[in-house]
Amino acid sequence: MTPDEFRVAGSELIEWIARYMETVEDHRVTPDVKPGEIIAALPSAAPEAPEPFSSLVADLNNVIMPGVTHWQSPGWFAYFPANTSGPGILGDLVSSGLGQQGMLWATSPAATELEMVVVDWLADLLDLPAAWKTAGPGGGVIQMSASDSTHTALVVARHRKQASASAGDMVAYTSSQAHSSIEKGANVAGYGHVRLLAVDDDYAMRPDSLRTAIAADRVAGLTPAFVGSAVGTTGTTAVDPVRRIGEIARSEGLWHHVDAAYAGTAMICEEFRHHQDGLELTDSYTFNPHKWMFTNFDCNVFYVADRDPLIDAMSITPPYLRNRASDSGDVIDYRDWHIPMGRRFRALKLWFVLRSYGAEGIRHHVREHVRLARLLESRIEADERLEMVAPTLFALVSFRHRSGNDATMALAEAINASGHSYVTASQIDDASFIRVSIGQTSTAERHVEQLWKLIVEGA
Amino acid sequence: MTPDEFRVAGSELIEWIARYMETVEDHRVTPDVKPGEIIAALPSAAPEAPEPFSSLVADLNNVIMPGVTHWQSPGWFAYFPANTSGPGILGDLVSSGLGQQGMLWATSPAATELEMVVVDWLADLLDLPAAWKTAGPGGGVIQMSASDSTHTALVVARHRKQASASAGDMVAYTSSQAHSSIEKGANVAGYGHVRLLAVDDDYAMRPDSLRTAIAADRVAGLTPAFVGSAVGTTGTTAVDPVRRIGEIARSEGLWHHVDAAYAGTAMICEEFRHHQDGLELTDSYTFNPHKWMFTNFDCNVFYVADRDPLIDAMSITPPYLRNRASDSGDVIDYRDWHIPMGRRFRALKLWFVLRSYGAEGIRHHVREHVRLARLLESRIEADERLEMVAPTLFALVSFRHRSGNDATMALAEAINASGHSYVTASQIDDASFIRVSIGQTSTAERHVEQLWKLIVEGA
Repeated sequence: MTPDEFRVAGSELIEWIARYMETVEDHRVTPDVKPGEIIAALPSAAPEAPEPFSSLVADLNNVIMPGVTHWQSPGWFAYFPANTSGPGILGDLVSSGLGQQGMLWATSPAATELEMVVVDWLADLLDLPAAWKTAGPGGGVIQMSASDSTHTALVVARHRKQASASAGDMVAYTSSQAHSSIEKGANVAGYGHVRLLAVDDDYAMRPDSLRTAIAADRVAGLTPAFVGSAVGTTGTTAVDPVRRIGEIARSEGLWHHVDAAYAGTAMICEEFRHHQDGLELTDSYTFNPHKWMFTNFDCNVFYVADRDPLIDAMSITPPYLRNRASDSGDVIDYRDWHIPMGRRFRALKLWFVLRSYGAEGIRHHVREHVRLARLLESRIEADERLEMVAPTLFALVSFRHRSGNDATMALAEAINASGHSYVTASQIDDASFIRVSIGQTSTAERHVEQLWKLIVEGA
Repeated sequence: MTPDEFRVAGSELIEWIARYMETVEDHRVTPDVKPGEIIAALPSAAPEAPEPFSSLVADLNNVIMPGVTHWQSPGWFAYFPANTSGPGILGDLVSSGLGQQGMLWATSPAATELEMVVVDWLADLLDLPAAWKTAGPGGGVIQMSASDSTHTALVVARHRKQASASAGDMVAYTSSQAHSSIEKGANVAGYGHVRLLAVDDDYAMRPDSLRTAIAADRVAGLTPAFVGSAVGTTGTTAVDPVRRIGEIARSEGLWHHVDAAYAGTAMICEEFRHHQDGLELTDSYTFNPHKWMFTNFDCNVFYVADRDPLIDAMSITPPYLRNRASDSGDVIDYRDWHIPMGRRFRALKLWFVLRSYGAEGIRHHVREHVRLARLLESRIEADERLEMVAPTLFALVSFRHRSGNDATMALAEAINASGHSYVTASQIDDASFIRVSIGQTSTAERHVEQLWKLIVEGA
């Protein structure tokens, strides 16, 4: 493809995406395809000869689009959002075009230093401890997903204790409501034990259950190594008591990791920051701009209070990566901050988003989503057939049908069958409930009203 | 940003990238910046108010571009390539625009099934064992980097043995010339021991050294668990004897992983396939279309001969991810194939590349790069001041100055100082050498001639 052919094809696809933005609402949120249908519509072997770009676009429309689940629909209320935005898409486009691979400062000073700048900007925007900024002992790094960051934190925690205990004897703690990435990450990192601790009536971790579990494990000869607090669980956005868990973690010598994958974005607004009180007692923190900060997937930010143990666990320097800048110690080589060596220039899209929206633009959208969530909550509370299962702390509304699990599941199915809205059915203990996550970039009041109509009809 | 504003800004950036393609050769390959210079040119805080798109583009030109290392320059001979191409960039653009998050089949049937299709296409194109295709017991999955895949393989190998041995007693083997990601991955996965085995005169792993090391470790009460073979080492593209290592791995019960991160692409040409003879005796395989297959970073493909142990090590299903399609067992949920839960629609760019180039187009470029490498090799062999340090099996030329390390390092510096070409200085044992990796998308004979002129002048 020559640059001129790229101009033509590129303009066509920019128009294609702009039309997608304008028409995404016309699609059913979830596609109507059966397993294997898309595979069956595609050839079983790659073409020998080049194909014209027009046939690619035709198949994109005819084969791929019917199998797309529309995460970008304003009727998307499922899971958490994975937002795109114009500036995010375009920042990513420039990243693809420049083809930087920023494993070392030397292999892309621009990618490395812009990343240092945007993670520092974000630290201030979310009011994170000053020590986590690049000028301090800590620092931030962009990873692919919160699962990656959390796994990395678990590895560092294990690595710190490795001289005195085997991984099989180490214990990671988190609440029964924590994201599955903690249990998965602990298994992957080789922990012998994961304790999913009891929660209180608001689904927040009970510090006493942490204290009791640590004591019992010590008696059993095990080595407590890691505790994960959630600021916004996946089930109901419950908030663990970070400060109290932090005090226990400090006195017991545990690595304390905070999973704010979803709710981290809300911290750009002052009124939510009390939920993460106690961050100075934590060792690492993960949040996803690719969820609720209009920065398209993938973009996770991982902060550590002290970068030394991280680099200690992750760094190996073969001769072909040695270079004067690295040897000088004056630069950051981000490959030493995570498992992958290669790294895409992801800071660009975050920079485009932060500058295009401005902090006040992001705050505006976050507050609007929270307002809509509270509006929906008030409707639910006023309807005697329905009940809330957890308070709406951010923009996730968790509720159920008072008639029980079957009625709740049937309601979720009815909403989703409409094609206009898509919610997630979930469960805590034996109780089913419906999660309505309000946060897609273009979700407005009318979409929530439409959802409410579906709830009323389905109830 | 409205769809109309996106149209305007998007067209501007498509033109910007097309111009970049046309003018990349005019830039010095490596930028002339000092550590901290880009940071100093950027504000220390994010803007409160939105900024116009024009100021973003202005800063892109004035602040970012002066700090870019031009991986996409035809004078890029450093490391291995990390190629972009028009179709790759555009496939990535569509992926950004659609904003799919394909953690489950249900969250993007299109992303999941297109991925199954393209990894199967690639298995055929590279002549990989039929069992590795989706219809068999194995399968392929796109990951971010070869480091991620290799680490995943190490975790699965450890997981298989975990019931009978502790990770601290497990041993991973690879050659002294293997990529650092194996040693790093083993450390991250908690292996107590990594053996970097002796190589032969061509820098390939010696099977007898593997056999001896395993025996010694068994005597010491350790548990051999993993061996990594390289098809194309990073230093000199040496090829380990996959079949003979595979026989040892089978008889000793080790997981056998093949790192073909760079050279995997060459297997699209029949004449290179003898280098990976014995693949049916391996358990996993990693290669990077983002290196030499014109698919922009990040795009790694990881194959397993049997997907059960992989899913066994990686799968955890919380209630909010349960859905009918997954419960049916009829679909693949790729989140169970790696650490990250969320996943971008990376298959699109690979699909765009494979169809736009066609298999014959990729073969053409690969063969042309290999031809240019042999051309350079013949020049070096004819020059009495220089000597090759390893045979040119693919498109990497490894040579040194006969006068020794200082002359070799001075030659590398002289080449790089020119700004036209960029090579990597490396070292094996105590001998310095220069790696010339020919494989950037637009590298043509004249660029290699230009490099040769620099070598002659510098020598």
